[in-house]
Amino acid sequence: MEKEHIFKQYDAELNDIRSKLLEMGGRVEKMIADAMKALVERDSDLARRTIAIDHEINHLEMEIDEKCLQVLALRQPAARDLRFITLALKIVTDLERIGDQCTSVAKRAIELNDEPPLKPYIDLPRMATCASVMVKESLDAFVRGDADLAIKVCRDDQFVDDLNEQIQRELLTFMIEDPSSISRAIKLNYISKCLERIADHATNVAEMVIFMLKGKDIRHTAPPTPLS
Amino acid sequence: MEKEHIFKQYDAELNDIRSKLLEMGGRVEKMIADAMKALVERDSDLARRTIAIDHEINHLEMEIDEKCLQVLALRQPAARDLRFITLALKIVTDLERIGDQCTSVAKRAIELNDEPPLKPYIDLPRMATCASVMVKESLDAFVRGDADLAIKVCRDDQFVDDLNEQIQRELLTFMIEDPSSISRAIKLNYISKCLERIADHATNVAEMVIFMLKGKDIRHTAPPTPLS
Repeated sequence: MEKEHIFKQYDAELNDIRSKLLEMGGRVEKMIADAMKALVERDSDLARRTIAIDHEINHLEMEIDEKCLQVLALRQPAARDLRFITLALKIVTDLERIGDQCTSVAKRAIELNDEPPLKPYIDLPRMATCASVMVKESLDAFVRGDADLAIKVCRDDQFVDDLNEQIQRELLTFMIEDPSSISRAIKLNYISKCLERIADHATNVAEMVIFMLKGKDIRHTAPPTPLS
Repeated sequence: MEKEHIFKQYDAELNDIRSKLLEMGGRVEKMIADAMKALVERDSDLARRTIAIDHEINHLEMEIDEKCLQVLALRQPAARDLRFITLALKIVTDLERIGDQCTSVAKRAIELNDEPPLKPYIDLPRMATCASVMVKESLDAFVRGDADLAIKVCRDDQFVDDLNEQIQRELLTFMIEDPSSISRAIKLNYISKCLERIADHATNVAEMVIFMLKGKDIRHTAPPTPLS
């Protein structure tokens, strides 16, 4: 009976880490959506609230880190559980850095909201939505152990990269045609870069999940391609 | 006697992780220097060799990850050793991503070497040197447990950020004055961003080291600053 009790508690601890990670992921997704809404709807109050929430993300990171350390110290997990926990430790770092990127987007939104709009925002919200879905799916792939979903996330990264390049080119034409737009264009360019980095973090998570599940790293099996 | 033998072996395993991490750091520093040299001296062969080395960095990441997992599984480390190993797991991820950034720099260098030079490179090498020192010092801070050195790394990040902004502004004037320079200016801008991200990774490592040593996260204790 005693042994069974310990097993149940151990399972509960692993489930707790899993659900805290998903909670952190959900909050980060909301940060992405809110930071973008603050830009599109010129809502600087929402931007400030988004920046304030980053604090909670950081606390969740520390909390999950501590939970993982406790399980490692007290339960001595082996094999699959050990890989799950060590990967959780790496994933929270990516989630926390996504939160940092959202904060950067929100700060630039506040600055942009003080100036006349440069153009209607269409591609940036599309990029944000795609990056947010990638974050969600990379975490789902992790908790469900779904390699196919993780592979999809890696593929979707190309779409975000392409959108980022397209946005950069478009902003460049604005800058060349009207030097008074330069300052705003640079800020929008920065936001585009932040969204691209968010997608990169999701891709990194997905790659690590594939490595956990298949025992091989998809990033590291292909030969180097000097010009791709 | 038997117990002493186990202790010695355990120490040797921890030292092995420590020295492998420093080896990985040293290789990453060389990648930064070589990628920059390939750009400044227009040496595309060196750029290709740098890209090829990324493969080794990736293998070192997997090797260190495995060593950490083995120690966690077999030795059940507690307290300080547990924090050391879980932090090592996080740090290798940053080092591997620094390698990715160096690969990106080297790829852009190959492209730029096929075109006439836009201008002599002065600030980019300065940025690369500073970022490389930050990588080295963040790892030194980790293996030595030196919080002061880690704090220095965090402060140095501002210098790299400032250089990046200065380079971006300068490239913009090139683009505005001469539209034929745009394609090259965008590539140089991208390289500047890569170097800034390398410095960010070093800063992230330093922040985690401070957290390990002081038990508090310097990123997460300050109140949110909406407009800084």
